[in-house]
Amino acid sequence: MTISKAPPAFPRSEYLRRLTLVKSEMARRDVEALVVSDQHNITYLTGYTARSAYVPQALVILATEEEPVFILRRMDAPAAMHQCFMERDKIIAYPEELIAHPDKDGYDAIIDYVQEAGLTDKRIGIEEFSLSTLTAEKFKRRLEASNVVDCTKAVTWIRLIKSDLEIEIMREAAAISDAAIARAAEVIRSGVREADACAEIASVLIRGVNGKPGTRLEEIAICATPRTGTCHIPWAEDTFRQGSQINIELAGSRHGYCAALMRTYSIGAPSDRLRRVHDIQLEGLDAALSAVQPGATCSDVANAFYRTIEKRGLKKESRCGYAHGIGWTEPTASLRDSDMTVLQPNMTFHLMLGNWIDEEFGYVISETFRVTRTGVDVLTTAPRVIFQVS
Amino acid sequence: MTISKAPPAFPRSEYLRRLTLVKSEMARRDVEALVVSDQHNITYLTGYTARSAYVPQALVILATEEEPVFILRRMDAPAAMHQCFMERDKIIAYPEELIAHPDKDGYDAIIDYVQEAGLTDKRIGIEEFSLSTLTAEKFKRRLEASNVVDCTKAVTWIRLIKSDLEIEIMREAAAISDAAIARAAEVIRSGVREADACAEIASVLIRGVNGKPGTRLEEIAICATPRTGTCHIPWAEDTFRQGSQINIELAGSRHGYCAALMRTYSIGAPSDRLRRVHDIQLEGLDAALSAVQPGATCSDVANAFYRTIEKRGLKKESRCGYAHGIGWTEPTASLRDSDMTVLQPNMTFHLMLGNWIDEEFGYVISETFRVTRTGVDVLTTAPRVIFQVS
Repeated sequence: MTISKAPPAFPRSEYLRRLTLVKSEMARRDVEALVVSDQHNITYLTGYTARSAYVPQALVILATEEEPVFILRRMDAPAAMHQCFMERDKIIAYPEELIAHPDKDGYDAIIDYVQEAGLTDKRIGIEEFSLSTLTAEKFKRRLEASNVVDCTKAVTWIRLIKSDLEIEIMREAAAISDAAIARAAEVIRSGVREADACAEIASVLIRGVNGKPGTRLEEIAICATPRTGTCHIPWAEDTFRQGSQINIELAGSRHGYCAALMRTYSIGAPSDRLRRVHDIQLEGLDAALSAVQPGATCSDVANAFYRTIEKRGLKKESRCGYAHGIGWTEPTASLRDSDMTVLQPNMTFHLMLGNWIDEEFGYVISETFRVTRTGVDVLTTAPRVIFQVS
Repeated sequence: MTISKAPPAFPRSEYLRRLTLVKSEMARRDVEALVVSDQHNITYLTGYTARSAYVPQALVILATEEEPVFILRRMDAPAAMHQCFMERDKIIAYPEELIAHPDKDGYDAIIDYVQEAGLTDKRIGIEEFSLSTLTAEKFKRRLEASNVVDCTKAVTWIRLIKSDLEIEIMREAAAISDAAIARAAEVIRSGVREADACAEIASVLIRGVNGKPGTRLEEIAICATPRTGTCHIPWAEDTFRQGSQINIELAGSRHGYCAALMRTYSIGAPSDRLRRVHDIQLEGLDAALSAVQPGATCSDVANAFYRTIEKRGLKKESRCGYAHGIGWTEPTASLRDSDMTVLQPNMTFHLMLGNWIDEEFGYVISETFRVTRTGVDVLTTAPRVIFQVS
């Protein structure tokens, strides 16, 4: 029996549209085949979201073929047949013997395919950014080195501009983020263990809202007193106390798309310092969002924030955000000074205004937004407050 | 104010013991400084578990210094001061300006440090396996290329053999895995959404057991009918039905250490085919565990399994497991044919007997075990049954 197809996250025509954009870029770069190994680019081009990227796998896109070929481990091939939009004969399984083999790995199977497809004398693009040096050398050794062209982030830049269909999925993810932030305000209490609050928040991120579950769980960061000066700590073994401040970063996720959101909580009345920082950051948030419009640059948005808070005596060292959507951080445009990427409709960003001011004090707020034809559409809708709980 | 130190997962003496092993290996390889960028190796050598590895960060270990230096992004430095065993002056923050900088990145700060420490004419080890080709080239370009030595997996192999203290943490993680597998048997029911069951399972993995919470959430795979031939799919948007089979893979996690566990569930009586496969796989599991003892090889354990099930007419294409502990898959020894790694006391493995037999049919069972002085100690203790639920 063959495995069934999952209900697709997007229609076939949407994947073909994306592939057309990629093939145009391949033509511009004069490459006839593109090997896509970045897992988020694979999700973008096929719908595949299973978590198998810890072993070699790649799409091979030929300029002359409508559908790409997906070469992956035998164990993972049924998931690819189930999830990908392509016909099942476009899924090629390499043998399990290549896993943890002393001399070869899955990239050898991918290079074998390129050779057998008669592409040895053609220009082949690879994504060096996400390949180890040992793998990149293998491509150059086994193919004609001068024909192996670095196409790092070629697909990644294309997916920065979302379609309306992608925006709808991100809006579903954002609704889950909103619900999880609201749930945190219900479960964070003095005397509650951080882990128990996190379990409740995770539950919302998985169950989802409006009949649409989350389809994976992204990282949750809960940085509570005395850790508000830190970020990226999932949670600690502590119990919340009266006077604790809690900084939360999370993201709902649907079909590989996420929408991140950060809010700050206080058990009891916030300190004067926290209240003052919040007020200033809110002004900066408004200024940044007001600067979003087609034609403005990422630098313009960041500097609108920086200028506003600096007038009020506050600084933020880190960037104000980054391209966001498939996976958490899309490694292309950044909302930072001197990033001259020009905003275009349906680019999506996490406006990340977390500000770790001292070692022992930080504050977080953020929104996920898209650029519209005339300005900005904020996908996340949680109240922009310090959530005061008891 | 300076940030406090978290209660350490291990005493200082344990980290110094690990560093002594690493320095011996450095001497054997004749390198005077080792740059450790693999996030799990960083956890092993410092106690740092925050999730910041998506940007450059590395330890620099000098043969002549007791403590390593940890160089990471300014934003993440307070978390390192909080979690690492080292004195705070061993945490070096590089400026946020290097994030998404067009020409430089955090590795430039790491190389600056190596240069400023007067090591330019010394032999420097790097972990090429986990570095992109662009980064490896930067090390060779900015340092003396002939002095840059690939030390891929040098630390990874050392951490394959756990201390008794590490085993105790893994036992705590295994108890969480056991509880989550038991919880799944309570919540998987006909008519229940996969996401709702997953939320309950995740809750146990986060809350933990015996007063010891999980300290992060590892991936959960729930591959239910019609997806039992797949693996690595988190869960689907479906609802369980009468007759569904559900394959679950999960892992409790404590302080960076996990203990994976897989079990199969059936809503209603299992099919004859499933029951037969289960019986054969159990025989194979017993045979594999019986083969575990110091002096035996990974290949011996795997072949004990393969031979047993093949006598009963079943095959498994994939390896039987892998080194396991910090992070899910430790990329060193594999329980596969012809892996001649010799078992030693306190090596830990995930005996992963998931068997994806056809596109639309697979079965899973696994255990996390350690090698003892005389045989095997299975850390996970869930019943070895097909969990039949209604």
